[in-house]
Amino acid sequence: MDKFSEDFSSRHIFLMVLLWTFFWCSLSFAAEQPVSDLTQDCIACHSSVTPAIVADWRRSAHSKITPTKALERPELERRISTNTLPEQLKNVVVGCAECHMVNSEAHADIMNHNDQKVHLTVTSKDCATCHSVEESQFQKNIMAFAHTNLSQNPVFGMLMKTINGTQELSKKGTTIKEPDEKTNSESCYSCHGTELKVTGKKTRSTDYGDLEFVELSGWPNDGVGRLNPDGSRGSCSACHTRHQFSIEMARKPYTCSQCHKGPDVPAYKIYSVSKHGVMFSSLNKEWDFKAVPWTVGKDFNAPTCAACHVSLLVNQERSVIAKRTHQMNDRLPWRTFGLIYAHAHPKSPDTSIIRNADGLPLPTTYSGVPASEYLISPQEQKTRKETLQSVCLACHTPDWVQGHWGRFENTLKTTDAMTLSATKILMKAWDQKLADKTNPFDEAIEKQWTEEWLFYGNSTRLSSAMLGADYGVFDRGRWFMGKTIQEMLDRLNFLAGSKRK
Amino acid sequence: MDKFSEDFSSRHIFLMVLLWTFFWCSLSFAAEQPVSDLTQDCIACHSSVTPAIVADWRRSAHSKITPTKALERPELERRISTNTLPEQLKNVVVGCAECHMVNSEAHADIMNHNDQKVHLTVTSKDCATCHSVEESQFQKNIMAFAHTNLSQNPVFGMLMKTINGTQELSKKGTTIKEPDEKTNSESCYSCHGTELKVTGKKTRSTDYGDLEFVELSGWPNDGVGRLNPDGSRGSCSACHTRHQFSIEMARKPYTCSQCHKGPDVPAYKIYSVSKHGVMFSSLNKEWDFKAVPWTVGKDFNAPTCAACHVSLLVNQERSVIAKRTHQMNDRLPWRTFGLIYAHAHPKSPDTSIIRNADGLPLPTTYSGVPASEYLISPQEQKTRKETLQSVCLACHTPDWVQGHWGRFENTLKTTDAMTLSATKILMKAWDQKLADKTNPFDEAIEKQWTEEWLFYGNSTRLSSAMLGADYGVFDRGRWFMGKTIQEMLDRLNFLAGSKRK
Amino acid sequence: MDKFSEDFSSRHIFLMVLLWTFFWCSLSFAAEQPVSDLTQDCIACHSSVTPAIVADWRRSAHSKITPTKALERPELERRISTNTLPEQLKNVVVGCAECHMVNSEAHADIMNHNDQKVHLTVTSKDCATCHSVEESQFQKNIMAFAHTNLSQNPVFGMLMKTINGTQELSKKGTTIKEPDEKTNSESCYSCHGTELKVTGKKTRSTDYGDLEFVELSGWPNDGVGRLNPDGSRGSCSACHTRHQFSIEMARKPYTCSQCHKGPDVPAYKIYSVSKHGVMFSSLNKEWDFKAVPWTVGKDFNAPTCAACHVSLLVNQERSVIAKRTHQMNDRLPWRTFGLIYAHAHPKSPDTSIIRNADGLPLPTTYSGVPASEYLISPQEQKTRKETLQSVCLACHTPDWVQGHWGRFENTLKTTDAMTLSATKILMKAWDQKLADKTNPFDEAIEKQWTEEWLFYGNSTRLSSAMLGADYGVFDRGRWFMGKTIQEMLDRLNFLAGSKRK
Repeated sequence: MDKFSEDFSSRHIFLMVLLWTFFWCSLSFAAEQPVSDLTQDCIACHSSVTPAIVADWRRSAHSKITPTKALERPELERRISTNTLPEQLKNVVVGCAECHMVNSEAHADIMNHNDQKVHLTVTSKDCATCHSVEESQFQKNIMAFAHTNLSQNPVFGMLMKTINGTQELSKKGTTIKEPDEKTNSESCYSCHGTELKVTGKKTRSTDYGDLEFVELSGWPNDGVGRLNPDGSRGSCSACHTRHQFSIEMARKPYTCSQCHKGPDVPAYKIYSVSKHGVMFSSLNKEWDFKAVPWTVGKDFNAPTCAACHVSLLVNQERSVIAKRTHQMNDRLPWRTFGLIYAHAHPKSPDTSIIRNADGLPLPTTYSGVPASEYLISPQEQKTRKETLQSVCLACHTPDWVQGHWGRFENTLKTTDAMTLSATKILMKAWDQKLADKTNPFDEAIEKQWTEEWLFYGNSTRLSSAMLGADYGVFDRGRWFMGKTIQEMLDRLNFLAGSKRK
Repeated sequence: MDKFSEDFSSRHIFLMVLLWTFFWCSLSFAAEQPVSDLTQDCIACHSSVTPAIVADWRRSAHSKITPTKALERPELERRISTNTLPEQLKNVVVGCAECHMVNSEAHADIMNHNDQKVHLTVTSKDCATCHSVEESQFQKNIMAFAHTNLSQNPVFGMLMKTINGTQELSKKGTTIKEPDEKTNSESCYSCHGTELKVTGKKTRSTDYGDLEFVELSGWPNDGVGRLNPDGSRGSCSACHTRHQFSIEMARKPYTCSQCHKGPDVPAYKIYSVSKHGVMFSSLNKEWDFKAVPWTVGKDFNAPTCAACHVSLLVNQERSVIAKRTHQMNDRLPWRTFGLIYAHAHPKSPDTSIIRNADGLPLPTTYSGVPASEYLISPQEQKTRKETLQSVCLACHTPDWVQGHWGRFENTLKTTDAMTLSATKILMKAWDQKLADKTNPFDEAIEKQWTEEWLFYGNSTRLSSAMLGADYGVFDRGRWFMGKTIQEMLDRLNFLAGSKRK
Repeated sequence: MDKFSEDFSSRHIFLMVLLWTFFWCSLSFAAEQPVSDLTQDCIACHSSVTPAIVADWRRSAHSKITPTKALERPELERRISTNTLPEQLKNVVVGCAECHMVNSEAHADIMNHNDQKVHLTVTSKDCATCHSVEESQFQKNIMAFAHTNLSQNPVFGMLMKTINGTQELSKKGTTIKEPDEKTNSESCYSCHGTELKVTGKKTRSTDYGDLEFVELSGWPNDGVGRLNPDGSRGSCSACHTRHQFSIEMARKPYTCSQCHKGPDVPAYKIYSVSKHGVMFSSLNKEWDFKAVPWTVGKDFNAPTCAACHVSLLVNQERSVIAKRTHQMNDRLPWRTFGLIYAHAHPKSPDTSIIRNADGLPLPTTYSGVPASEYLISPQEQKTRKETLQSVCLACHTPDWVQGHWGRFENTLKTTDAMTLSATKILMKAWDQKLADKTNPFDEAIEKQWTEEWLFYGNSTRLSSAMLGADYGVFDRGRWFMGKTIQEMLDRLNFLAGSKRK
């Protein structure tokens, strides 16, 4: 190589490395986006006070695009849905102030914070400013009423009291104390959502001088059916974890496991051992969890919870397989979560209004008669079934799908039959005064009966629905449905023996 | 820089970027492989009808190499094993037609599909066309008989009926209905495999006109011991998930968790908390799950299920540490899965032929006497133990390995001793007519006894084998073996008390 | 393009590819580090004998930097802590010989190995050669006494015997045999650590001729409180898995799950469904688990076990949020692991010295009176609480943190109240001679009582501490605390009935 070439080459190589580096960097770091003055004020202090919150937000889509630009995307790719963007949100990214200072007139939890009106909580109604369609779907979701459906239902109220109230020994057995608010908040209401109520204000001295803060009962909480201080229902952060609001995270099944893993509703565990879950665990590092719309076979090879129940799915020609929904039961004909029996989904998300033939706020009677006028019609069930089946059919043939659903609906019947047998034993105990019907959850035999449907029935049905076989057999499945019946029979016998003497 | 250089540079940089890009792309996308005309016909419709199946297949090794080329690889790297490739498979990749139209004369599930004879299911025998060695090993695997070993064993038949049949209250207690085929298919047979039988044909109108489809009982299913419509046994797809057939997935432990996670056989859970499992979970993103052969210390740093039980392992000098086997118990001296006691592995994969000293099809009597003539010899146990220990010794010193195995074989004895105590209590109940021996699984005290060995004995033994300590203590381990004995004693006492009156 | 340019271009491109490749390779492979002659001798054979151990070590930081260079790093980035490096360690990387031949005068497990004095085990004291600060913190950690706290406490001794001893039927019920060493070693002592004692030597013929090896009882084991053959306590390898000693692995929660997942201490499971755990599972592939110090919001977005309890944390301005500690309870005011009740942490890591008001070596009496003189003071509790809260405050506001801790401390009280009710029932059984107090763990009603606090109390408290709601409700939480009380009442009743006759 001659001298010229050599010089040229080395200079050139240096330049290439630089340019190449620049090229890659320019892909990674998008141009700086406009941040509102108010948000810049927030960040000025909070990047020191709560550094991880600010760091989290910087990774979010919220910090990287203005709502106006987000609305300009092709419809299928769009991630916001309002048509009436408030003026102040149009040309800035969605930062602290854009969420914590919106709709402030409605917020009881407003505080004077460095001369600004800031509210502590961000509510479903606040999110609806940009995500109006999703929020209105969510309000039809039974989950939006998760708090109300517990707190306004006297039967479930007894269950909560039995679980959360401390028991003290009494002459006849035990008495249960009324549970305290702290316990309810961290147990049932942790997932169902608390009621956030402003109880006062207090001043705290900070590095930035004395500041005023609101005090809230039920705080902290991001339960899905939270009652908010602006009168709205629901915390979007239950699934869209603040402050990164990562769609990747919402689409991964771990998010659902927060509330759907225990013996009452072991959906996550069942998914994990299903073929779908095994594919996810083994292969997901190569999937694209951020693509909108979500393309079956290209972005992912097996469904997560979100794929079947929530997400906008398309095929590789961009035909829509399933529309996005935040009314999760949109694609569900049956409520497999037995209370006490499997049943068609309730019409209203507010299930506390249901009255069965015995006048109780339950979707069926103790012996299994459905409160049909409060439940969706067979026609509506058919529609919802077909919606979900259209997702199945992206990967499975019609014979596969029919075979699967045939088994599932058979299992609803057999688990209901087993539950009925357990219920009949309990009714004998009640009739023979071996147990007291007043609270159906507080005695040992009643607790066995509760587990029959709440643990073992639910597990068997969900196992059938999502193909996690052993959760329908030995892992809190049919084995335990049968065992509970036998143990209830023995206990009835022993109770009768004890009484006779 | 002079004008020439500058021009040259920018032109050149542009070219470099192009070429670099091309270079990388060429690494990623191998040259187009020859797809048979028949398979192209399949894809023409099915890329719309079942897009994710086609997308999955495109990612598979099957779509990327012809069997002829696959056979040309050095022996250790080879992933197929036949010497007699059918002519039509030699020079095309393995697509839809190559599997769904092979051996069609044997397939009862054949259908006339666009003027072609296509069979719905692909069986172990179909896979053997290219993977003959693996398939013949698998046929010696007890898993290949997983269906038969349940369906042809009257004792296990009673267990299945007790689990899957619904119970109705009767005067004396309960009666159990014969379980329906749908329930059996989605519970026990989900893992063990169903029997696929053609029950008829039907015509369905599709986007491509009216088409004929076969109807199969037991469908869908990919259980490991499935009885296929071509008379063969086994679904390779149980572990080699269709249609990507990813070796990465088969080697990751999630695959095994599909059937080996529940309380009867909690292998996956135990692995997860073992040092091996923790290393896998923490570090596997940097391992190579696709390399064949699989090099210990280079491709992976801790074994998965496959490494110890299946895979071809070599050291960094390419010396073979363990030969590939699809007869999983090739490396297993003991069957820790107690039925009722731990025992030497059965000689034949068909365990329904076993008769113990009491004439029952079980590997031991109720009191633990092994049916030795049906079980492998101590010499064969020694061979298998040494085969597995050669895997241990790749990372552990001989004293480590001896210490570990000494504990393991001691635990087989102590768990058997505990099971014997529980069995003696049950026998008392039977003798004193407090329980009915006819079905040993249907009464509460019998169910406790079953859990003693099926849940707690198995968990303790597997915990010992794979180093997941708490599964041998508090997590369904020894604590529960002891508790069950005490509760059985109390129950015997209470049953006697109830009877006396 | 003229001929010159064309030629030049292609030559140049080729060169570029080469140089680029070289550039990347040079980033990946650091310059060769000095390995001691002794270690080179070890590797010469052991890369064939135990290839995966050597491969593992090659990936470790130990193989890549000399202690002298490691000490030269800025203080916050430093990963070793001694000021008195032995001469022989200064200028070589830390290989086989540097650990297995250090402090050999103290090691009873020394063996003559190719004319060198080599010890089989590496102990906490050996690690302290470079990591002296960490080791001295660890010795104040209750975990360092995990073996002693079991073996020297007669109450826990009874619990161990009850779990690990086999039960045989006797006239009055059962007798429990003294458990054998193998069983203890693989069950309780698997996590707590065994006592390693040299029991002899033996010669084994190897590929390299006859070699002498020591024989150790209690081997293999890497339990956290292991008693070592050099008289020291603790195996660092429990968390810092040999021989890669990956900080990434120690910081991931899987490591902790080895011992903290079962029903007695389900910390890992609770973490997994908490918001923190869900963020980890969904997003950790983008986190940096190797950075020292560990920067909140930059290196990771949600804490793992290590972040809250061990690691050195800084904010993005490199201010220290929490100092590194290997005395894990440094940041813990309460011992939630109820024995029998929640209590302030013991002052001494040796809990076998505690005597409660009844003279028993337990931190409280059966009725809950704390052995206060052995427990840390309220002032010390306050200090530890504030240390942990400073971690919380990196992401959460003070009102969030106060609300959370208020609930947690309330739950300590309510779970203790439930435990007290269960204890009162057991005391009745003891008083009425329906159970025998001598061993409080061996009868069915005593086992129910044990589960009340050991399983359900612990689960509820940990669930409260780490926000895994259902582990405080249906997943071995409050539901089971209440159920156990009801079942104990029934059992008391049935036992009384059986006795009367």
